[in-house]
Amino acid sequence: MIRVLIWNEFVHERKTPEVAAIYPNGIHNAIKDGLVELLGETVEIRTATLDQPEHGLTDDALDQTDVLLWWGHLAHDQVADAIVERVQGRVLAGMGLIGLHSAHAAKIFQRLMGTGCMLRWREASEREKVWVVDPSHAIAAGIDNEHFEIPQAEMYGEFFDIPQPDELIFISWFEGGEVFRSGCTWRRGKGKVFYFRPGHETYPIYHQLEIKRVLANAVQWATPSGSEYFGEAREC
Amino acid sequence: MIRVLIWNEFVHERKTPEVAAIYPNGIHNAIKDGLVELLGETVEIRTATLDQPEHGLTDDALDQTDVLLWWGHLAHDQVADAIVERVQGRVLAGMGLIGLHSAHAAKIFQRLMGTGCMLRWREASEREKVWVVDPSHAIAAGIDNEHFEIPQAEMYGEFFDIPQPDELIFISWFEGGEVFRSGCTWRRGKGKVFYFRPGHETYPIYHQLEIKRVLANAVQWATPSGSEYFGEAREC
Amino acid sequence: MIRVLIWNEFVHERKTPEVAAIYPNGIHNAIKDGLVELLGETVEIRTATLDQPEHGLTDDALDQTDVLLWWGHLAHDQVADAIVERVQGRVLAGMGLIGLHSAHAAKIFQRLMGTGCMLRWREASEREKVWVVDPSHAIAAGIDNEHFEIPQAEMYGEFFDIPQPDELIFISWFEGGEVFRSGCTWRRGKGKVFYFRPGHETYPIYHQLEIKRVLANAVQWATPSGSEYFGEAREC
Amino acid sequence: MIRVLIWNEFVHERKTPEVAAIYPNGIHNAIKDGLVELLGETVEIRTATLDQPEHGLTDDALDQTDVLLWWGHLAHDQVADAIVERVQGRVLAGMGLIGLHSAHAAKIFQRLMGTGCMLRWREASEREKVWVVDPSHAIAAGIDNEHFEIPQAEMYGEFFDIPQPDELIFISWFEGGEVFRSGCTWRRGKGKVFYFRPGHETYPIYHQLEIKRVLANAVQWATPSGSEYFGEAREC
Repeated sequence: MIRVLIWNEFVHERKTPEVAAIYPNGIHNAIKDGLVELLGETVEIRTATLDQPEHGLTDDALDQTDVLLWWGHLAHDQVADAIVERVQGRVLAGMGLIGLHSAHAAKIFQRLMGTGCMLRWREASEREKVWVVDPSHAIAAGIDNEHFEIPQAEMYGEFFDIPQPDELIFISWFEGGEVFRSGCTWRRGKGKVFYFRPGHETYPIYHQLEIKRVLANAVQWATPSGSEYFGEAREC
Repeated sequence: MIRVLIWNEFVHERKTPEVAAIYPNGIHNAIKDGLVELLGETVEIRTATLDQPEHGLTDDALDQTDVLLWWGHLAHDQVADAIVERVQGRVLAGMGLIGLHSAHAAKIFQRLMGTGCMLRWREASEREKVWVVDPSHAIAAGIDNEHFEIPQAEMYGEFFDIPQPDELIFISWFEGGEVFRSGCTWRRGKGKVFYFRPGHETYPIYHQLEIKRVLANAVQWATPSGSEYFGEAREC
Repeated sequence: MIRVLIWNEFVHERKTPEVAAIYPNGIHNAIKDGLVELLGETVEIRTATLDQPEHGLTDDALDQTDVLLWWGHLAHDQVADAIVERVQGRVLAGMGLIGLHSAHAAKIFQRLMGTGCMLRWREASEREKVWVVDPSHAIAAGIDNEHFEIPQAEMYGEFFDIPQPDELIFISWFEGGEVFRSGCTWRRGKGKVFYFRPGHETYPIYHQLEIKRVLANAVQWATPSGSEYFGEAREC
Repeated sequence: MIRVLIWNEFVHERKTPEVAAIYPNGIHNAIKDGLVELLGETVEIRTATLDQPEHGLTDDALDQTDVLLWWGHLAHDQVADAIVERVQGRVLAGMGLIGLHSAHAAKIFQRLMGTGCMLRWREASEREKVWVVDPSHAIAAGIDNEHFEIPQAEMYGEFFDIPQPDELIFISWFEGGEVFRSGCTWRRGKGKVFYFRPGHETYPIYHQLEIKRVLANAVQWATPSGSEYFGEAREC
């Protein structure tokens, strides 16, 4: 049983009718539905949002979390630094973290990367093709036609200011001429981190089967699997 | 159910009494016993040896193999090139490969690496400590005391002429003053490759619990898990 | 003084008038002109072709080579295995190797990679944009506008069956919908290897300034720079 | 001309006579002497210390810096966060950073890594052997006997909680049974980062020739060499 926590700032859906029309219960619940659909009883899923006490990321909540998914965009700077530090500590101690779309600019992601994580972008409802460049990777399982297509997407383009990924799994092509490293992994401490680009709030991206598939794979991959040991500084 | 094939050149055990005393049924069967002990009914294990037709690595045998373990030392050059090519093709198509100890100099390993894979060595019954340097990795699961010790080992020392590993999991320390990258992974095509240093024939290394644990983890890790798709050259 | 050897199979230029029109002295001499233009007296450049004795890759010639560039396409299988082995040995001992365009399928490249190195392709005079994804890398020096464009190119698309690069410097975008890891590095033994995708024989690609710039950078980068020591197998 | 800035907290030397005896002008000046000895007029070297205004790391000083070396130990927490942020910005924009010994726990290093960077240690005047595991790397140039030895050192042991290095160049062996990834590189933004373990204040390590050689190599390697371009977040 993998214990999943889906965090969403939950701002767009409450303030923009077109987003609410696509995600009436919030992006977090759409993601949850996808994971339940594909992973069934092998996962136990909870959600948390920015407006909850401690943003729903209490020690108690994190004690019960194997993998945390993070969606944020408008309110990155409203996430308290103390909570960011707490989440970072959990990742280093083994919790998986999946950063979604504009979470590239979330404090927690920047802090784990050590870079600015900036990129180019354009909102023009462009076609995106997501190509598999590591077919051996568990996160690519089920993407069997070499790539999949997202009919309408916000463009993210290189240079994406991240550390070189430990593993590069997906590269996106955009109609307007850009490319982007869309699926990347890194190890931090004992925790595994996956960043997945698609997920703009004005398109029904989390309802698309391939996206659900990648997220389900990523949840399984990011589950702690290594040594129980974790290094503390210590004289010996 | 993971389908495992353990290949052993099976020469030392037949010709050197001290090796036969440690591995009366051959190294392959000792490894098999360890996997059965830890993985039970989740694996189906067969063995193959150099002296069998096609070295036991027929197309039929490989059709039923998810992960191949390889132990060789004295007889690397007796492995037919056509069989090496066949095994390489299988790895590129997704079969996992686990190279054991002196398999660093096996044709199949050199061919997948593209380098000479040479190293320094010394047989002096030295103490070896195997340190975990990636505690997040599934292959390190269960090695919870930061390192484990092998009381008597043959020394392998750097420089080990391999491509930089995709993941470096274990580094060994030797009493005599050397270090060695003892647990390394690489992706090749759709297949996963793991090299694991310990395993000299004159010591009871495959009877040691931590070694069994690492091999059991590695078998699970090397099982094909990615996209069904595999790239052929093609015009489009 | 960097000693450069440019190897070209030199077949297309002699048999196809349209190629001869673009490269009247052969692709090798066009590449040479570009290097001379940008690197001047800091390089000493020679060329070699398939039809010469030992394909021009004699021990003497290689003794005087710091960096070897390789262009081949139609005649990969006419390169003698013994010569391939010799070149591989030189790379492992420290010589730089730059694989150009269809050299992805050259024996020497496949042998150093350990994979099939296959890809998708299409000849349709498409526009290619080459994006910088590692602006810190010396090979990207001078590409200061984030990307450069090749007006007409043959398309190469993923999945490109190579080991994950040690460093990924360029990703290409193609008009028709594909992406490609166009500039990649790997270490093999003491030698450095760079693969650079652009270079189809029916377009004036080696006359383009950005291409010359990347090749000049790559020559400097691939020059041996490490320890004089190189590991031989040895007991100690 | 490479412009180098050597930063030292400069605390030990002023408060502990045995350290002052080894480094009468401070560790920073000992490092400077080594660089001058090996790099001569190709470098222009300045120093800065914690007690200076803005710790000597003013915008003006950084404007004139290609590569920054950092030695700190007792006073990590006295380095102002605003200065750490400024230095991080410079690294992302291309300045090289070389972290020395206990700088693994410096704020600037932790911030660029995203991890706690902790490790095991022991002060017992042990023998250390530093082995080359990437002889192709420019930072290993001149270390031609496979390894070098430090007669007395503080021990640092794994697990070292860092992101997997982009390049692993040195691994240390310690008399007492530990190993350590002693020479590691990472790219962050447009800047190059090197961490080098040896350098404890109670031993004359910066007076040792091999150490000077590695630092001289590292300064050359870390000098900005890539594209002038650096990615800002921007709509396009």
